[in-house]
Amino acid sequence: MKLDIAVLPGDGVGPEVTAEAVKVLKAIAIQFDHIFTFQNGLVGAAAIDKTGSALPEETLTICKNTDALLFGAIGTPEYDNNPDAKVRPEQGLLGLRKTLDLYANIRPVIAYESLLNKSPLKKENIIGTDISIYRELTSGIYFGEKRLSEDGNIASDLCQYSREEIERIAHLAFKAAQTRKRKLTLIDKANVLESSRLWRKIVKELAPKYADVTLDFMFIDNAAMQLIINPRQFDVILTENMFGDIISDEASVIGGSIGLLASASIGEKHAMFEPIHGAYTKATNKGIANPIASILSAALLLEHFGLFEEAALVREGVDKSLKLHITTPDLNTKYDNISTSKVGDFIEDFI
Amino acid sequence: MKLDIAVLPGDGVGPEVTAEAVKVLKAIAIQFDHIFTFQNGLVGAAAIDKTGSALPEETLTICKNTDALLFGAIGTPEYDNNPDAKVRPEQGLLGLRKTLDLYANIRPVIAYESLLNKSPLKKENIIGTDISIYRELTSGIYFGEKRLSEDGNIASDLCQYSREEIERIAHLAFKAAQTRKRKLTLIDKANVLESSRLWRKIVKELAPKYADVTLDFMFIDNAAMQLIINPRQFDVILTENMFGDIISDEASVIGGSIGLLASASIGEKHAMFEPIHGAYTKATNKGIANPIASILSAALLLEHFGLFEEAALVREGVDKSLKLHITTPDLNTKYDNISTSKVGDFIEDFI
Ligand SMILES: CC(C)[C@H](C(=O)O)[C@@H](O)C(=O)O
Ligand SMILES: CC(C)[C@H](C(=O)O)[C@@H](O)C(=O)O
Repeated sequence: MKLDIAVLPGDGVGPEVTAEAVKVLKAIAIQFDHIFTFQNGLVGAAAIDKTGSALPEETLTICKNTDALLFGAIGTPEYDNNPDAKVRPEQGLLGLRKTLDLYANIRPVIAYESLLNKSPLKKENIIGTDISIYRELTSGIYFGEKRLSEDGNIASDLCQYSREEIERIAHLAFKAAQTRKRKLTLIDKANVLESSRLWRKIVKELAPKYADVTLDFMFIDNAAMQLIINPRQFDVILTENMFGDIISDEASVIGGSIGLLASASIGEKHAMFEPIHGAYTKATNKGIANPIASILSAALLLEHFGLFEEAALVREGVDKSLKLHITTPDLNTKYDNISTSKVGDFIEDFI
Repeated sequence: MKLDIAVLPGDGVGPEVTAEAVKVLKAIAIQFDHIFTFQNGLVGAAAIDKTGSALPEETLTICKNTDALLFGAIGTPEYDNNPDAKVRPEQGLLGLRKTLDLYANIRPVIAYESLLNKSPLKKENIIGTDISIYRELTSGIYFGEKRLSEDGNIASDLCQYSREEIERIAHLAFKAAQTRKRKLTLIDKANVLESSRLWRKIVKELAPKYADVTLDFMFIDNAAMQLIINPRQFDVILTENMFGDIISDEASVIGGSIGLLASASIGEKHAMFEPIHGAYTKATNKGIANPIASILSAALLLEHFGLFEEAALVREGVDKSLKLHITTPDLNTKYDNISTSKVGDFIEDFI
């Protein structure tokens, strides 16, 4: 297969972890006789510094003309702590999501056997957890109208959803549930929010089409608690943009490290793959960033194009690295000094 | 001291747990020679059923003419699962908060020694945790304009904040930090939301007035993770309404049970005290609801009026009941069948 892949490393540890994912994809291409090409694009603070924009036209052109995007991370403390900045790194990521209409962000949460002890949660509470989070990614309060009064004393954000926006991702989530444990949980705040009531209403309407799926509802506050108390109760979670952001980061504690969580952002025409951890700038260029989330994002990319055997091999390599403790310091209690690139090298060699 | 207390039991397990808190307050009154009077008011689904309104005028009059409110819980599955209901139980609770201008919701999160084993989190991760969450309670997306398009296909909620709304609770949170470990963490989503950027800006502006307090900022997604990974890093948390709702329910896992978390909702003129657990209708009238959160709410009420010795005695009673396993089934691994009212009786006797 021939695949043109846009690589957008972004900020912080983004470039380091993305380099390892590319390494792994190149090994797969050789092993399975595929042709993968890679084109780098600027995004985030890195792009602002060079071009003044967080998402330069050139990057967008690359993204539109490739089959898939491999994304690193975005954000720096300078921008995070400056509420007045007009140009912000996140505009790069949010701009990509919106322009390419990547409306479904899919985040798998799995309790890896070999890492059960690393989790802050008790082993018996998390063992066997296997959740797939479907987060709406192109609407809600992220993209609703933002206002700041002239005197700068009143600020607002609008959380808006339309029927189409809810339906398209709900269908994906129902279908995913059909291939899994056939349970779908909609997380919302329907006791307070009008937009949540619309979600609940529409998802209820669609349910009869997926009669083999058990549908239930949970308020976000309760869900934030249930995810820790009893994560095994969940199969597929469906939720709006902001709640999905919160719940998926929270869910990372189940796997023992946010450095393991990959995600796919899917639209009708485009698809982007990225680790869910952020730029983690404190770790930049120290060789300590965990590349596994980025490498697993590459596995999701392969699966997206039907390359299941290839993806399975990548996952096997990851499992092996975890079992043999070939991991970065965040997960390693056995060896010191296993660097980001050593982990990538190990998985590359394995392939 | 003479205190007139409005008692609003509400729905689900509300009446049961509130009865125990009243029992305890009566014991305190006798023991310390205070005069506490109690006036019951209807609220929530219970009020809708009898009067058609979730917050009848009569209840509001009682609340306005008493010194403090003891609140139970609100909500029933019938309403939760009916997105089309025009009158909703939550309107009672939200109406009270808004009308009485109870802008600061204070939720203490403590890892009780005797319950460390009950938490889904590993003991070593939570031991020593002592957090005070300051949640803004009368603004944000809860109270911003809600819209539903005529065809019912577009819904929206507005999240709006003004300088005054942020300043008044920020001052309270800074002051609380001064009496504690002098650390304040603002939780927001300033990389995406205009309203969050206003929070960050204003809180930064106030910081020099509280130079002895270390201020830091955390995005809500990261905070949802940090709270589980390393809760001891927090002292006072300050946040807006919706994020506070999520984070405080999530934080309940640290204490081992949401049945332990009390909260105070404070305004300039009024104060309301309530458990943070909801109506938990599945447990209604089974005698299994944990009354401790409600009893600890009564302790917060006593402290609010400077009755520290009295509150300390209530807390001692609670500690004793936990140590001796005189607790409801959610916490009890030793005895079966200790009911809601038995726990209240024990603490009453202790006092
Ligand atoms: C960087 C930020 C804008 C982004 C988000 O909130 O969506 C990130 O947290 C994520 O989850 O991908
Ligand atoms: C019942 C509901 C409206 C309420 C809220 O969201 O504020 C509850 O969850 C709480 O936290 O007190």
